Amino acid sequence: MTEQIAVEKKILSENDRLAAEIRDALQQRRIPALNLVSSPGSGKTSLLEVTLKALARRFSIGLIAGDVQTENDAQRLRAAGGAQVQAIVTNGACHLDARMVGRALAGMNLERMDLLVIENVGNLVCPSSYDLGEDMKIVLISATEGDDKPLKYPAMFRRAAMMIVNKTDLLGFSDFSLERVQNNARSINPDLQILSLSCRTGSGVDAWIAWLTDLILQARRPSAE
Amino acid sequence: MTEQIAVEKKILSENDRLAAEIRDALQQRRIPALNLVSSPGSGKTSLLEVTLKALARRFSIGLIAGDVQTENDAQRLRAAGGAQVQAIVTNGACHLDARMVGRALAGMNLERMDLLVIENVGNLVCPSSYDLGEDMKIVLISATEGDDKPLKYPAMFRRAAMMIVNKTDLLGFSDFSLERVQNNARSINPDLQILSLSCRTGSGVDAWIAWLTDLILQARRPSAE
Repeated sequence: MTEQIAVEKKILSENDRLAAEIRDALQQRRIPALNLVSSPGSGKTSLLEVTLKALARRFSIGLIAGDVQTENDAQRLRAAGGAQVQAIVTNGACHLDARMVGRALAGMNLERMDLLVIENVGNLVCPSSYDLGEDMKIVLISATEGDDKPLKYPAMFRRAAMMIVNKTDLLGFSDFSLERVQNNARSINPDLQILSLSCRTGSGVDAWIAWLTDLILQARRPSAE
Repeated sequence: MTEQIAVEKKILSENDRLAAEIRDALQQRRIPALNLVSSPGSGKTSLLEVTLKALARRFSIGLIAGDVQTENDAQRLRAAGGAQVQAIVTNGACHLDARMVGRALAGMNLERMDLLVIENVGNLVCPSSYDLGEDMKIVLISATEGDDKPLKYPAMFRRAAMMIVNKTDLLGFSDFSLERVQNNARSINPDLQILSLSCRTGSGVDAWIAWLTDLILQARRPSAE
């Protein structure tokens, strides 16, 4: 297994180098970048759809949508309109890496971009290890999953800056407790920001949009340098 | 990347060798073995809880519960009672492998076991590549995830013998269509058996229990040799 660990270390260090290049390129252009991670089916694409609806007229948004197979998510986001959308099909790989993101960015116009969101492959484990050059990871969890997920997949919640609890319209249909998931998440990462919302009903989406708007405006301020 | 592929091939071929040993040991004792896979939060542990409730008095069941971190699932299954339960904590690894399963089995009494169910790590990608010595993979998907999951994670649905759609009590609260998920799954794997049920309400659970009972009884018949 030593051979495996050596190769993994080499891959991760090469990935970190490429991620640093991406981070530089984005920061020079004052483009905040988010790496959106979750289980399959927690609602990453739905969240991006409501985000585009609220922000696409005011800001130029770049989206990179990763999937193991199909361009379904990218197509949904293109249909939502108002954003530059690039698809990454990993053909079996369980996470995005910086090389894939670098290639996708090469096909996008960074001079006209206020925000970049990378939608990772649906997987709560592997994407936690790969820096994509983002400013922060945002982990999405839905109120129909178990509220012990932060304890069971701690690396992802430790490395995220924010947790968004989606599908709050389905609270009460299972044993999922909003208080418990918050406590579990903060026991792993005391600094984690937490929002809860429902992409379906729109409840709580305003706070997310306000947070994103603030992020974009802060990045543009000269004093941010 | 050639170095990475070579190491991966070596790991998988070593895994296949260990999995074949496990398969032999189980088949000699006529123990059918299932590898239960899904996204985090689809309800693998809940399914095993209702399964124990229905079958534990009649049959001796062995359960191996894998998690990236915590023994939460194993504790829930021990609390449900009536089964030999072994926990595997992968400490960050995104899937179970045959070596981990072999170690867990070494602590179990195979002479008194009618059925083995291995609950894999919640992950729709990586566990598809690792043979654990099981007779078949069963993929669980919940009616609160997207119905395009079989298209987006095809390897898992291609390698599974059965798909169980859980949380059918939440059908109608989202755009998820039972017909669509069935069609998508069969377009990837025409031979896939499909059951739908709700662990919460118990609806559809009878068919799953009848199928399992039949599997156990078939394995015991002398003519099965």
